[in-house]
Amino acid sequence: MHIHQSAKIGSDTKIGEYTIIEDGVIIGDHVEIGHYCMIKKDTVIGSDVKIGDLTILGKSPNSNKKMARKPKGTLPPLEIGNNVIIGSHAILYRGSIVNDGVLIADQVSMREQINIGTHTILGRQVMVEPNTSIGSYVTIQTGSYITADTTIEERVFIGPCCSMSNDKYMATGRGIHKGPTIKEQAKIGNNATLLPDIVIGKQSVVGAGAVVTRDVPDNMTVVGSPAREIKM
Amino acid sequence: MHIHQSAKIGSDTKIGEYTIIEDGVIIGDHVEIGHYCMIKKDTVIGSDVKIGDLTILGKSPNSNKKMARKPKGTLPPLEIGNNVIIGSHAILYRGSIVNDGVLIADQVSMREQINIGTHTILGRQVMVEPNTSIGSYVTIQTGSYITADTTIEERVFIGPCCSMSNDKYMATGRGIHKGPTIKEQAKIGNNATLLPDIVIGKQSVVGAGAVVTRDVPDNMTVVGSPAREIKM
Amino acid sequence: MHIHQSAKIGSDTKIGEYTIIEDGVIIGDHVEIGHYCMIKKDTVIGSDVKIGDLTILGKSPNSNKKMARKPKGTLPPLEIGNNVIIGSHAILYRGSIVNDGVLIADQVSMREQINIGTHTILGRQVMVEPNTSIGSYVTIQTGSYITADTTIEERVFIGPCCSMSNDKYMATGRGIHKGPTIKEQAKIGNNATLLPDIVIGKQSVVGAGAVVTRDVPDNMTVVGSPAREIKM
Repeated sequence: MHIHQSAKIGSDTKIGEYTIIEDGVIIGDHVEIGHYCMIKKDTVIGSDVKIGDLTILGKSPNSNKKMARKPKGTLPPLEIGNNVIIGSHAILYRGSIVNDGVLIADQVSMREQINIGTHTILGRQVMVEPNTSIGSYVTIQTGSYITADTTIEERVFIGPCCSMSNDKYMATGRGIHKGPTIKEQAKIGNNATLLPDIVIGKQSVVGAGAVVTRDVPDNMTVVGSPAREIKM
Repeated sequence: MHIHQSAKIGSDTKIGEYTIIEDGVIIGDHVEIGHYCMIKKDTVIGSDVKIGDLTILGKSPNSNKKMARKPKGTLPPLEIGNNVIIGSHAILYRGSIVNDGVLIADQVSMREQINIGTHTILGRQVMVEPNTSIGSYVTIQTGSYITADTTIEERVFIGPCCSMSNDKYMATGRGIHKGPTIKEQAKIGNNATLLPDIVIGKQSVVGAGAVVTRDVPDNMTVVGSPAREIKM
Repeated sequence: MHIHQSAKIGSDTKIGEYTIIEDGVIIGDHVEIGHYCMIKKDTVIGSDVKIGDLTILGKSPNSNKKMARKPKGTLPPLEIGNNVIIGSHAILYRGSIVNDGVLIADQVSMREQINIGTHTILGRQVMVEPNTSIGSYVTIQTGSYITADTTIEERVFIGPCCSMSNDKYMATGRGIHKGPTIKEQAKIGNNATLLPDIVIGKQSVVGAGAVVTRDVPDNMTVVGSPAREIKM
């Protein structure tokens, strides 16, 4: 266990074996951190938080010459609220905010500039790309992929293994990058495919395995490839 | 390496560096455990078992207020049979049974109350949800997702990246939770989508990318979205 | 930190805490290796390489009696070129070659006998199976699955969560194992499904969620399930 002397650790907080806590980290009270974790520079963790083994908090993004998106300037620290649970083998980057009561399961990968609303659940192996906003009381089930530049409103349900994209022209440099907008209480079935820059309306339902190629109005159910309305 | 004094370790067993073995663990003979592993409380491991690096065995489930399913009471220990191979970066929960001769590849995530039959293979990044039974000599290829409350019979083949779900009404609280039943020797093509509570018949074949919305009788081949019979 | 005495480490190279470097490893100059990494026997790493935390380089394959494919003889060491970036929680096997300027993101799983061309990007959680060739300046986005026996030519773009297979008869022992051939500058949309042994032509485009069941000629755009040509 290596704790940098500038880190501030609250009372009744337990830290696992071989865990590394870097300088400038602030941790609240009644926190449990597992074994072999890395809490990177400046990360802020609230109280009553539980973090599994082998998890990395506050990682800085890599980049190479070919990557379209490079973070500008220094990202702010990763901020974790109160009563948050984070699983094992997870990786959360700098520059994101995880609000109170969130559950992030094992093996989740969450990049920078993401805001996760209160009491939201990210299932195991969920991947979230940068510059994305996820509302409160959202459920994103195991293995789903949330692309960059996406907005997911309150109480949305996303089933397992869903996929999205944000680049209509697939790396040709044309157009803007924009992920889907999923409005409040919409439900997306497992393994559905969402194309870039579409809107899924309030309380709408997308069937399992559907391929959604254009906007879905509020309160509509769509299924199939390409997805079309069905009457329920 | 931290081995709790109450752990029982068989003869000719090798344990890697920085590995943590908790109290009540029982390990057989001729076992190889990698580096940075966590063998949690009470886990039982047979003989001639090989476990990769950075793997967690016997994890207890987390839960928060919003989760539908909370384990009741104390789960029994994780039990691993003889001649089992487990990869690196895998996570296996308490309360499951892995029978003799099983191969579990890297990065697999396997929850509680699961039974894996003899000589079955789970490919890399396979995710298995709770309360699921998988028969003997089954192959589940890389990246597939097995939902909760699922039955997979003997000698089933599931290709890579398949997806299932178990909740027809998607978290509205209506209906029961029930995953698919896949009967013996059925074959599911890659990236197929299976809806809740359907039956795939004996020796039936589901084509790659198919979306299966209703039961498939024995010995039938179905393809497409929604999946329909084709004559081979 | 355990460094075997036979390992050769270049100048200005930094190695993280609790990292294990086995015998016969050769590491160039100006390399940064994270915490809790395992650099297995004989691995060769160039100069100006950056490796994240909890990453395994040079793992040897496991096998059990049921697996069709067993590596023959001893695999050569894993070779990593210059200016390569590898993320955290990644696993790269022995017997593969990663050329200069490649970016391999977090949680990638890459087996043996794979060649990755210069300046190619593998996104997070990408899985690559054995005996596969990936050209230069290729992008494979987050969560995609590249099956065994696959050829991907230069400047191909593969969106997130794509899936492929290489066994038309799904483990019945009939036919040969052959993955897709994706020709130069082709683009594959997110969550597309490619069947075994098909050719995607030069500069062709496969739509998101498409299921490609037969060859696509050069410069053609296909969408749907099964995928058919559309005029753009």
